Amino acid sequence: MMKQRLHPFLNILPKGKTALRPRIYPRLHGSPCTRLLFTAPNTHRSRQFHKSLGPGLLVAVGLSASFIFSSVVHAEAPPKHDDVPQTRLIRLSEVEKHGGDAETQWITKGTRVYDITEWIPGHPGGEVILRAAGGAVDSYWDIFTIHKKQEVYDILDSYYIGDVDPSDLIDGEVPVDHIDNPFKNDPIRDERLIVHSQYPCNAETPTTELVKFITPNETFYVRNHMWVPETSLKGHTITIELPNGDEKMYTMEELTEKFQKVSITAALQCSGNRRKDMSEWSRQTNGLPWSIGGISNAVWSGVRLRDVLEDAGFPVNDLQDAVKHAQFMGAEAYGASIPIDKAVDKRGDVLLAYEMNGQPLPHDHGFPVRVLVPGNVAARSVKWVNRVVVSEEESPSQWQQRDYKCFGPNVNGNVDWSTAPAIQEMPVQSAITSLRDISCNATQDSGLPQINDLKGDVVAVEGYAYSGGGRAIVRVDLSADGGRTWHQAQLLKDLPEGEGGHKAWAWTRWRSVIPRHKAGKCFVVKAVDEAYNTQAGEYEPYYNFRGNLTSSWHKVEYRPGESEIT
Amino acid sequence: MMKQRLHPFLNILPKGKTALRPRIYPRLHGSPCTRLLFTAPNTHRSRQFHKSLGPGLLVAVGLSASFIFSSVVHAEAPPKHDDVPQTRLIRLSEVEKHGGDAETQWITKGTRVYDITEWIPGHPGGEVILRAAGGAVDSYWDIFTIHKKQEVYDILDSYYIGDVDPSDLIDGEVPVDHIDNPFKNDPIRDERLIVHSQYPCNAETPTTELVKFITPNETFYVRNHMWVPETSLKGHTITIELPNGDEKMYTMEELTEKFQKVSITAALQCSGNRRKDMSEWSRQTNGLPWSIGGISNAVWSGVRLRDVLEDAGFPVNDLQDAVKHAQFMGAEAYGASIPIDKAVDKRGDVLLAYEMNGQPLPHDHGFPVRVLVPGNVAARSVKWVNRVVVSEEESPSQWQQRDYKCFGPNVNGNVDWSTAPAIQEMPVQSAITSLRDISCNATQDSGLPQINDLKGDVVAVEGYAYSGGGRAIVRVDLSADGGRTWHQAQLLKDLPEGEGGHKAWAWTRWRSVIPRHKAGKCFVVKAVDEAYNTQAGEYEPYYNFRGNLTSSWHKVEYRPGESEIT
Repeated sequence: MMKQRLHPFLNILPKGKTALRPRIYPRLHGSPCTRLLFTAPNTHRSRQFHKSLGPGLLVAVGLSASFIFSSVVHAEAPPKHDDVPQTRLIRLSEVEKHGGDAETQWITKGTRVYDITEWIPGHPGGEVILRAAGGAVDSYWDIFTIHKKQEVYDILDSYYIGDVDPSDLIDGEVPVDHIDNPFKNDPIRDERLIVHSQYPCNAETPTTELVKFITPNETFYVRNHMWVPETSLKGHTITIELPNGDEKMYTMEELTEKFQKVSITAALQCSGNRRKDMSEWSRQTNGLPWSIGGISNAVWSGVRLRDVLEDAGFPVNDLQDAVKHAQFMGAEAYGASIPIDKAVDKRGDVLLAYEMNGQPLPHDHGFPVRVLVPGNVAARSVKWVNRVVVSEEESPSQWQQRDYKCFGPNVNGNVDWSTAPAIQEMPVQSAITSLRDISCNATQDSGLPQINDLKGDVVAVEGYAYSGGGRAIVRVDLSADGGRTWHQAQLLKDLPEGEGGHKAWAWTRWRSVIPRHKAGKCFVVKAVDEAYNTQAGEYEPYYNFRGNLTSSWHKVEYRPGESEIT
Repeated sequence: MMKQRLHPFLNILPKGKTALRPRIYPRLHGSPCTRLLFTAPNTHRSRQFHKSLGPGLLVAVGLSASFIFSSVVHAEAPPKHDDVPQTRLIRLSEVEKHGGDAETQWITKGTRVYDITEWIPGHPGGEVILRAAGGAVDSYWDIFTIHKKQEVYDILDSYYIGDVDPSDLIDGEVPVDHIDNPFKNDPIRDERLIVHSQYPCNAETPTTELVKFITPNETFYVRNHMWVPETSLKGHTITIELPNGDEKMYTMEELTEKFQKVSITAALQCSGNRRKDMSEWSRQTNGLPWSIGGISNAVWSGVRLRDVLEDAGFPVNDLQDAVKHAQFMGAEAYGASIPIDKAVDKRGDVLLAYEMNGQPLPHDHGFPVRVLVPGNVAARSVKWVNRVVVSEEESPSQWQQRDYKCFGPNVNGNVDWSTAPAIQEMPVQSAITSLRDISCNATQDSGLPQINDLKGDVVAVEGYAYSGGGRAIVRVDLSADGGRTWHQAQLLKDLPEGEGGHKAWAWTRWRSVIPRHKAGKCFVVKAVDEAYNTQAGEYEPYYNFRGNLTSSWHKVEYRPGESEIT
């Protein structure tokens, strides 16, 4: 494993933690606290781990889900250890001998050393933990926040074997060249993207790009949960694992040559899209402040997941009741799942996509192949996918189990996550992407439809609307007076009828032109989908502490002469 | 055809219309006005008509859709006819000779006589018009309101051949025994039903019955568009018509013996459910004032429409792009359609249902067989179904084309109906069905869950929640203070997991118990479905002039000591 420069997160490691001398806790295999964290044992993942335990495969293959270790960083208090036993001092060179392909695996955390060998097969997050073996686990902590709770500290402590030898420390810390930087493969990105976080990259599409039907690859919003993994066209494979344990592996060459290539046009939307609105109009939420650019639309080409599953031996036309989910694992360690019905639905258009707008997938968007689940929250369209598991269970990943869910407006973060379903299909959504003053002299040249044969100065309004589950947008209501009166915007027919896939996976662009003298201070939009679902007006009754699926009316202040929407 | 007593509708016929003497208009076959009414020529229906044109079949078989004639009744003005030509006087005995099985078909309308023979093959509503041939069409007018427009008056006038001989009139009107009463087969109904209209019967389920998971047959809401037709188990058949014109007919015996019997539990909801709320909280709507009882839930047993279509030769597993709809015709003349995807979806559970809660279908609910389209608006679950047409087009019936649609809050009745899609799946819905004071002494015996271990006087709240498309209810938020604060109601698990059908077709009952001292003046409920769709708070921004799909928060005034919800 390459050792790199100090990772940015580690700059904020608190000083003075190295002198701690904890006592050894009893081992906690199978303790109730671990069962609380994950609803069911992940038999598939454990089997998968044992099969892939060959030298060289451990890091590259089957990375998934979450760590189950955490520690004493940041402001969180470590367990108290008053009774100090004799401590074994361990050299870093000794730790390095216990990497992913060694007989036993060790990690450091801060200045403490743990032998995690026995824990790995039962690790709910799978063998991604091997990525850290032989070195420091520290740089993963801020990504896998699931570990930051007392019961996890307890588990970690139960594997404590000693401290890093002080002679290997610099200023009381493990030296920087011992820390892997998982973000070393992240690409250089378009400067027009509005970056909410650099590591991992979360960046939204600017409004100037949102007015296009097809979002260009370089300004398609980026939502990475972790680093961009090192992948290659030749080295990448996808393994299909069936309920009976059978596996079949496909190279990219096999995937593209063996199966029919299909293209769909589909929007992807982050569940956090418009979270900023919820924080502003209701209360503070826990998440990045995405504005209206956590959504983009592209043409995706690839092969049908259904076809690949069938080729691998899964009876896609004769589902058994016990099989309910298709789990996806990404090469960076992310994991998620979708209902099996959606995965095998002929009209569900779930792809293993390797092209985006006619180009190979960009690295930020899953090169060389990603899952594309149209109509579902983008979090299920797992990038850099290398394993698909057909299972009785949902993905055990934290992003399936303890994120991407919504709770009531009265619920705070102290919640039983199992009481809400994982977000799959999304509710109807719309936003205003452009408000432009156009003078009476320019209206003939504006390229805009002269709705109602308007004359004189006008305000041109544009936006998008979208709904989950392939439910088409059937109406967009626009108000120029804060929601008091309404009229219908024109829906653009960007896709010829019957194109783009079996259902309405793409967003719908809309526009309207209204007389300037009718423009009040606040423009408001709401959309209606083909099930006549609509968007609520208020925010507070729909507040959820994670700020997911914000879909109340998008409101934009109108200031004559100004046109930027932020 | 049996002649009965004066139909109730005819009591309100205005007097003094009989002296009108219009001039004969030019015939208007294929005129633009008829094409405006219906989006595409109905080739299937025309073919069907010609095939079934045998004696005895005309009335019983293939009744469907709408008349295209109207006239001069009620307050609507007739065409003006100043230039009076010589009028032919015709005896009623002569009219009677031109019934449905005669060579030419005549009808009377008011005191005028029309020879409609040439019009019948092109009648968009199909051969239901034959039901009136040889007699008066008057009693159908108020049902098929589609005819009440000038272009229809013009078409009717183009077939005018003379007036009823005054010697056959009594008090200037056609005598009562010449009018057929289409409601003569309507059953006697349970007195607990809340009747909004007797002819046709529209009656909602009382709140005392809405609290049950399975609505008993006798209190299941009744929504008839017309009369209850005369049907029998032995005489009833269903004909499947394929796109190539092939037909296959099934007797009830064949249907029940040849195909697998399946049962699902599904709610049916009228699009007008809770229309009363929209009228009260927003503006007056055009339709019957259904409260919260335009919905009920039952176990439906029958055969899969998919299986029957396949047996009839339709390739259910290999849909052709051109085929997009399954049209259903009922024996009383009603018609509707659903998308073909839904009709053949293995997991769509569309039935030809012949049992309701373990009993043969009651006459009011479609005896001996109805379509059951779970997840869709009940208007598509055509009762007394006798014909299924697989087609490129939606049903041409007025209930598909010019009803059961929603428009924006700014749109009045003067609307281009083709601009909105027919309602199929419905948005998420919920209502409070019971508010009960329970004293601290009685709480132990109430049978209610002691939520939060409450002590002291409480208010027990119960209700239902439902969403279209089989989207499960995942959360119900209840407020005891008008929507200011919320908590989650308990969702009852009335159906064992995996039962009831492939998706969540049934409604979900919920309940809650709150301390009396926390009960404000207004209780409010809103639900969330699995796509995280929710219900809006306000009514006015969601107003539509037909009052369809009212789904804003259900609000109930709380009066201590009173418990009836109206």
